[in-house]
Amino acid sequence: MKADAKDDTMKREMMKIREEVLSRVRPTVAEKMKLETVRKGIIDDIVKIAHQLGQNDIIPLSVGSAERNTWLHGNHDIDIFISYPEDTPFDSFYRKSKLLLTEMAKTGDSWEDRHSEHPYIHIRKEGFEVDLVPCFSVKSGAEIKSAVDRTPFHCAYIKENIHGLEEDVLILKQFMKGAGVYGSEVRTGGFSGYLTEILTIECGSFEKVLERASEWKYGMVIDIAAHQTIEHEDPLVVVDPTDPKRNVAAALSLTKFSLFIDRARAFLKNPSMEYFTKKEYPPLTIEEYKRLAEKRGTKRVGISFKTPQQAEDTLYPQLFRLEKSLEEILVRNEFTVIRTFSWSEEHGKSIVFAEVLNDRLPPLQKRVGPPVWNETNAASFCKKYKGDPNTFSFSIENERYVAEIPRKYQSAAQLIEDLLFKEAALGRHVRDAVKDGYEILRNEDIEKIENDAFWKFMNEKLTGQIEP
Amino acid sequence: MKADAKDDTMKREMMKIREEVLSRVRPTVAEKMKLETVRKGIIDDIVKIAHQLGQNDIIPLSVGSAERNTWLHGNHDIDIFISYPEDTPFDSFYRKSKLLLTEMAKTGDSWEDRHSEHPYIHIRKEGFEVDLVPCFSVKSGAEIKSAVDRTPFHCAYIKENIHGLEEDVLILKQFMKGAGVYGSEVRTGGFSGYLTEILTIECGSFEKVLERASEWKYGMVIDIAAHQTIEHEDPLVVVDPTDPKRNVAAALSLTKFSLFIDRARAFLKNPSMEYFTKKEYPPLTIEEYKRLAEKRGTKRVGISFKTPQQAEDTLYPQLFRLEKSLEEILVRNEFTVIRTFSWSEEHGKSIVFAEVLNDRLPPLQKRVGPPVWNETNAASFCKKYKGDPNTFSFSIENERYVAEIPRKYQSAAQLIEDLLFKEAALGRHVRDAVKDGYEILRNEDIEKIENDAFWKFMNEKLTGQIEP
Repeated sequence: MKADAKDDTMKREMMKIREEVLSRVRPTVAEKMKLETVRKGIIDDIVKIAHQLGQNDIIPLSVGSAERNTWLHGNHDIDIFISYPEDTPFDSFYRKSKLLLTEMAKTGDSWEDRHSEHPYIHIRKEGFEVDLVPCFSVKSGAEIKSAVDRTPFHCAYIKENIHGLEEDVLILKQFMKGAGVYGSEVRTGGFSGYLTEILTIECGSFEKVLERASEWKYGMVIDIAAHQTIEHEDPLVVVDPTDPKRNVAAALSLTKFSLFIDRARAFLKNPSMEYFTKKEYPPLTIEEYKRLAEKRGTKRVGISFKTPQQAEDTLYPQLFRLEKSLEEILVRNEFTVIRTFSWSEEHGKSIVFAEVLNDRLPPLQKRVGPPVWNETNAASFCKKYKGDPNTFSFSIENERYVAEIPRKYQSAAQLIEDLLFKEAALGRHVRDAVKDGYEILRNEDIEKIENDAFWKFMNEKLTGQIEP
Repeated sequence: MKADAKDDTMKREMMKIREEVLSRVRPTVAEKMKLETVRKGIIDDIVKIAHQLGQNDIIPLSVGSAERNTWLHGNHDIDIFISYPEDTPFDSFYRKSKLLLTEMAKTGDSWEDRHSEHPYIHIRKEGFEVDLVPCFSVKSGAEIKSAVDRTPFHCAYIKENIHGLEEDVLILKQFMKGAGVYGSEVRTGGFSGYLTEILTIECGSFEKVLERASEWKYGMVIDIAAHQTIEHEDPLVVVDPTDPKRNVAAALSLTKFSLFIDRARAFLKNPSMEYFTKKEYPPLTIEEYKRLAEKRGTKRVGISFKTPQQAEDTLYPQLFRLEKSLEEILVRNEFTVIRTFSWSEEHGKSIVFAEVLNDRLPPLQKRVGPPVWNETNAASFCKKYKGDPNTFSFSIENERYVAEIPRKYQSAAQLIEDLLFKEAALGRHVRDAVKDGYEILRNEDIEKIENDAFWKFMNEKLTGQIEP
């Protein structure tokens, strides 16, 4: 086949894939009308209730992907911001917005207070998931008074620049979902909707985003508004066109950044529909797990405790920090860590554990000290170990002092029990939770966990292969 | 105590130590006379036999420490070089010197041919160990025709410069013996007699050598003749005053260099006679060893084979290379090596083994691949492991591909059996010896070794502490 003919075949194939993906992810007319009706009803309710409360200076703003025509079929999220004048004092802002949200809560079929540092409620209404978020009406995204004040600027920027690329955004979002890299919540550490939109605008199409991504390296910078003012230490830096100091991709983990590069490259080499569906892993049965654990021959050690009642984005950074500490403590004590796991069930247990080559080490530990010519450190190393009746041997190897001493922790479980809560810098909520009680998990303890989501997660971790 | 008074006390203490050491190591008058008589007899024999053989142009040269008055009491070594005119052709040199040595062999009580690349015999005569080495009478140490031609220049240099420092050399040599760093043969990797003499001349006294040594760092350069012409990658560089290109300390290992620094520093802080006697370790009994092995809880793996009949300086570099290969192969396959051992018995067994934290590893191995953005390496890593039915999992961690695969070697012994002779770059004589047969040693196999010298060596290795 000639190069031109091959190109044509590729183009036709790509068009077919685009159409097929769109037929799956494009919202239906009925869906759009339904969303429009519900959204309008909520905005009307806000205006009416604000009026009743004498809050005549608020402006309701529809800011979600629905507003930008970049929402996926089946997605029932509506985001409405309630904008207060910039000069509203903070206390008055809190008081007024709280009153308004309290009344709005009553209009939903159900509701939840999502307030953490900022007032914010979530209501369910006619099958939609609605976020209601008060904000300040600031002049620009660079002069915000609260973190949420940026969102209306993001929405406005996309609305102004997205024309004609809405479908490319839909396809890219679905591709990212298929790759498991979509979603900027901490647990996922992937691409946000806004980031996906900016990349599409910057590159010009779904395919061009993938072409560019397949060449990315750590530290890649995209500055669509050419106004970057500060450096960021992130895998990907996408300077916010509405705020020169902000990296839109700050929440993107290195793993998800790398995975997207790999998926983009693989797809371009051999495009197929497979990329647009995330592979589902069935829950491992206990028997399957036991066989797998036997075949791996490794050991497991970690802890379990009651899940703190916190939003996922508050909880997960703390779980990840605990996971990191667990690994560091094990490695520092010469246990070879293969990988680590964090898993959490709302209203249930959270567990953080490590898979290690071996959970027992022999009584002897080799401690390699400073070079002889580092006189100060050498003196303190010698003082500590030389002549100690417990020291097995004390010698010089190459330029360094070497002491063979009794190992403090022969058991990984004992090490975790003793040190994890003493040495790890725990997050507040995790610390409070483990204070109320925890269990050390080892090896077979994992088998006692009865939760389908956990065993799906384990199946993916233990048997998953990047595909296709 | 005032500083001056303290200094005085130190000086007196040092004088006492010097006297006591000298009283032990200074040869007696009887000893000197005996040596002088034997040496003169040998030189007379050489001249007479050369005359009979028509070799009237040779010159016998006495070149050892005896000649320089820097020999230690109890040392019965005599080194006599037989110098041929520089323009003697190599074949004629070999033929003539061989004839002469053959006749000289008959004058000894017993003799050995030590010829390797250069003709050379060793004879025993009236309790003395005599080396007879033919050489060329070249113009300078920098224009040698064979490696041994330098020695007469070394001897001449020291004789010219050592005056008054002979006793300091004796004390320094004994100090080095006490520290286990004296002797430039490969097995020891320590300081040669010539190196010790140069250091004493350069620094001016035994104490000053130690003062300077206690400040040494890796790469220290001493160029007594200020004529260095090339750089050396050695821990210590002492430029040969008779050859600007040569490092007199080339045979000094990093470990022995470092140990000398440590011992010099410790002695100067608290001088005592203890430093002048090497600590003797009695052989471990099998029961002691078993208790010790149990207490360490580690494992052992290595090989044993018949010792090649070679001079130590030929054999040991090959044993050390094997030891290094053993360590590398174990480490590359994720066994944690604590230390390695080489031991050899003439006319018996040579053994090379490693002490490891564990000699068994689980069936699963984590293979960490290249970063996603290293496209060529990424492609070959993916091709190798992705989709292989034996791969446990294939994923991305941070920027790298990660494959969990079946481990090739779960057993350290199996690994050594399969790879040591395939992958290790073995020395010629060791390779020939293992071709004739070898045994894989593991754990309890060590206990079967019946040899006092081995169990002394093991006692020092397993329980030794640098003292005082």
